[in-house]
Amino acid sequence: MKVDPASMAPRDCYQLLISLMVPRPIAWVSTLAADGVRNLAPFSFFTGICHQPPLVCFSVLRRRHGEKKDTVCNIEATGEFVINVVSERLAKQMNQTAAEYPPEVDEFVEAGLTPVPSDRVKPPRVGEALGSMECKLVEIREYGNMPYVASFIIGEVVKFHVNDEILRDGVVDFAALSAIGRMGRDLYCRTGDIFEMKRPRLET
Amino acid sequence: MKVDPASMAPRDCYQLLISLMVPRPIAWVSTLAADGVRNLAPFSFFTGICHQPPLVCFSVLRRRHGEKKDTVCNIEATGEFVINVVSERLAKQMNQTAAEYPPEVDEFVEAGLTPVPSDRVKPPRVGEALGSMECKLVEIREYGNMPYVASFIIGEVVKFHVNDEILRDGVVDFAALSAIGRMGRDLYCRTGDIFEMKRPRLET
Repeated sequence: MKVDPASMAPRDCYQLLISLMVPRPIAWVSTLAADGVRNLAPFSFFTGICHQPPLVCFSVLRRRHGEKKDTVCNIEATGEFVINVVSERLAKQMNQTAAEYPPEVDEFVEAGLTPVPSDRVKPPRVGEALGSMECKLVEIREYGNMPYVASFIIGEVVKFHVNDEILRDGVVDFAALSAIGRMGRDLYCRTGDIFEMKRPRLET
Repeated sequence: MKVDPASMAPRDCYQLLISLMVPRPIAWVSTLAADGVRNLAPFSFFTGICHQPPLVCFSVLRRRHGEKKDTVCNIEATGEFVINVVSERLAKQMNQTAAEYPPEVDEFVEAGLTPVPSDRVKPPRVGEALGSMECKLVEIREYGNMPYVASFIIGEVVKFHVNDEILRDGVVDFAALSAIGRMGRDLYCRTGDIFEMKRPRLET
């Protein structure tokens, strides 16, 4: 099958696009509103940019009628956020925080999660997460046509948190981390089936 | 463990960063040099930005001494590229194309892959890939400090290719696609262990 994106319904284009970029890591992003209300929400258009300094990025689509989501409003207001890692045992809580709650609702409370104070930023991290990255905003750029505008958020990691439970000999044990990834539709994958391939070194 | 990235060796910072953003999809990117030589290379700092129009992005670090990789030079010269999906049965060939070949080497030949003409762009797609996205360059932005500069490439998908083998009732069958994701170090994950979670709908 060959398809020209311009000929597709927006919903179908979205589904095909996310189905060909799999598996995607999930940024479970905690923020604070200007008035101090906590927010927590998952995003899977999420990746790294570089490591000196460590920059990460994620994209947030508008709500149905073009309004910005709380995560974007909060980062615009405060310039800070925390990205938490989603392990399999937190899958249900993560999914709970994907519901479209009004701004005054604290998703930590709704999902029964523990807000733990961060070291370098004001938004709390998820206490139950096995890894977290405290981030300061670098820039927000907008892409896409209304009402399908995306706020593309770039941040610098200013502190890493890694639970000792997932550290073996100083590196992350992926079996212990048990991260889940996002696929298309409402599907997620586990990361228990891992294999190694050494990058080939050419003779010179 | 808590770590300040500024206190880490660049290599350790890179490893921790990529270990906390897992699993990552792999953009297997085909390009053409200005003189027509084909190039193919994998990148896992790869995600989507929005879907109207469909925009994708990936990041390419410099080589060890700060030189741009062939993928970046080719996209700068031609403004076009194709992102191919890496299924498990193409893992070895993908890894082969991760070697640092000189610009005159055609990785399609080295890895025994079939270059198939694209519809809307000049670089060929990987014939063996079960999905491909033909892309036109939107912009290249640079981030990071020398020699750890990253070229962050944003492109618009102008044509989707989906092998009928992975389509079931008009949607992608992820078992048939069997995509692999990148973890930290030299580790990859399979995506055979999938589960569903419907996004909660709130009563209003």
